[in-house]
Amino acid sequence: MIRAAEARLAPVVRRTPLLSSPFLDEIAGRRVFVKAECLQHTGSFKFRGGWAAVSALNETQLANGVIAYSSGNHAQGVALAAKKHGTSAVIIMPEDAPALKIANTRALGAEVVFYNRATEDRDKIGDDMAAARGLTLIKPFNEPQVIAGQGTVGLEIAEQARAEGIMDAEVLVSCGGGGLTSGIALALEETAPNFKVRPCEPEDSDDVARSLRSGVLTGNAATSKSICDAIITPVSGDITFGIMKKLCGAGLTVSDGEAMLAMAHAFQRLKIVLEPGGAVALAAALFRPDDIKSDTVIAVATGGNVDAGVFARSLEML
Amino acid sequence: MIRAAEARLAPVVRRTPLLSSPFLDEIAGRRVFVKAECLQHTGSFKFRGGWAAVSALNETQLANGVIAYSSGNHAQGVALAAKKHGTSAVIIMPEDAPALKIANTRALGAEVVFYNRATEDRDKIGDDMAAARGLTLIKPFNEPQVIAGQGTVGLEIAEQARAEGIMDAEVLVSCGGGGLTSGIALALEETAPNFKVRPCEPEDSDDVARSLRSGVLTGNAATSKSICDAIITPVSGDITFGIMKKLCGAGLTVSDGEAMLAMAHAFQRLKIVLEPGGAVALAAALFRPDDIKSDTVIAVATGGNVDAGVFARSLEML
Repeated sequence: MIRAAEARLAPVVRRTPLLSSPFLDEIAGRRVFVKAECLQHTGSFKFRGGWAAVSALNETQLANGVIAYSSGNHAQGVALAAKKHGTSAVIIMPEDAPALKIANTRALGAEVVFYNRATEDRDKIGDDMAAARGLTLIKPFNEPQVIAGQGTVGLEIAEQARAEGIMDAEVLVSCGGGGLTSGIALALEETAPNFKVRPCEPEDSDDVARSLRSGVLTGNAATSKSICDAIITPVSGDITFGIMKKLCGAGLTVSDGEAMLAMAHAFQRLKIVLEPGGAVALAAALFRPDDIKSDTVIAVATGGNVDAGVFARSLEML
Repeated sequence: MIRAAEARLAPVVRRTPLLSSPFLDEIAGRRVFVKAECLQHTGSFKFRGGWAAVSALNETQLANGVIAYSSGNHAQGVALAAKKHGTSAVIIMPEDAPALKIANTRALGAEVVFYNRATEDRDKIGDDMAAARGLTLIKPFNEPQVIAGQGTVGLEIAEQARAEGIMDAEVLVSCGGGGLTSGIALALEETAPNFKVRPCEPEDSDDVARSLRSGVLTGNAATSKSICDAIITPVSGDITFGIMKKLCGAGLTVSDGEAMLAMAHAFQRLKIVLEPGGAVALAAALFRPDDIKSDTVIAVATGGNVDAGVFARSLEML
């Protein structure tokens, strides 16, 4: 399915670069490569999964339109994929999603419906609306076509790492529901079996790290206050967790402050814009040296849809 | 020479992506593509010319070391190329160069010597020091090997444009001494003859635009106060101007404020970090629609070595 998604994505996806800087290597104490998915269409890897899912729909489904729930990156990915397929998209977003993500989702032609993260269940809202209006729900992560689309990042990492002469590495992935993490793990299982995927999360939203430790899918107790909006999910999915449990190494966690500092380093050393959730894997690569074993680490920088004020605050940390 | 430089650069250069956003297309009123050379090693295209020149030296020259003068981007490009060739580099920089560029040049192992832009002649300082210490001077732009190295950007633009189905375009290039502009023009003359290169400058440092209008190589009257430090030169060179006069279209100029606003749009829409001088071509693409004829414009984003405070100020313009 990942190879099939790759073929459907080929005419539209951006092959994002694998960046590095001797200054980052020095901080981390090992070689650090950054897969810059913030440079993907819509500013995050989510375009891949959105396209993979929408391009797999049949004619009737495409005629009726799609629906998705998202804090903003999956929203934009699905909205652009829908628009380019000539169909309509309804996006259910949390009321406190970043203004930029809301504005972009609307600008891409989607109808935005808001919900309250603390008091409402977005899955139920999505299911109800899909049933009432005949829309196809594109789930953000616990959905095979979406995982397959995100997995194409792993195929590119394997090829680019080979070109750099990287024989083995830990691949750090900012992890919310686990669609990207599990997709990359599946892709690398075949194409770079010496690579080990490590999910990376904010400290107060570390459900995947805890679930991997206990072996049982567990959610977060309370609504996260982390600034890493892109990767805060109540709980990952049975499909994504099953894959991660089989293929991934232990999870890593970082503080919001470390994610913000990683954004600042990415600005200064790589000239890319990361959002807090998109910088979590790089933060782990830079600031958790004792929890990593391999000489080379590849951090997936998942997105860059950050409001200017938040970004400016990160720069004050330099 | 450009093809030979391409071969020497192949193992080390980063092939930078050609980015775009429907939001930028809307501002410009036409399709806008951005060649993101800010993602090149050392944060600017200058690594290409530095590598092309240093890799062309003979053994004696490599043993003695190199010298260069630069506001900071050529400095870093030459410093990294020298370091990777196992030779030493002396870099002559203006006293008021951005702190980041000075620090990076030193961190790359170069010896930094300062001069005053208003009262001293960097060419004379460079010539004297090269003679006294037996160093090979790597000129920043008016030097065939450097032009050939920068020209490899043009080869990539031609290939990437073809992949995007772009048949003709104006190629806007942030222009200081004209090394990159003339190199790209030479590369495109053969590989994409329908493309027209247009040099882009700050309003108060528009020597190339004026020289192209008059047909005579003319310098700037006074020291520029523009924030676009990377592309402020007293005058371009006889070699670079000769090429630009033969191959380029009319120059475009933008204000410092427009360059800063283009930085902010590149942050928000492309997730890349540009310095003011590196944003001048994008600024022209966005804010000079009446001076451009083609349906598609390709702006070369030349560098991203900007101090955090300046970048944060640009974000306030959003």
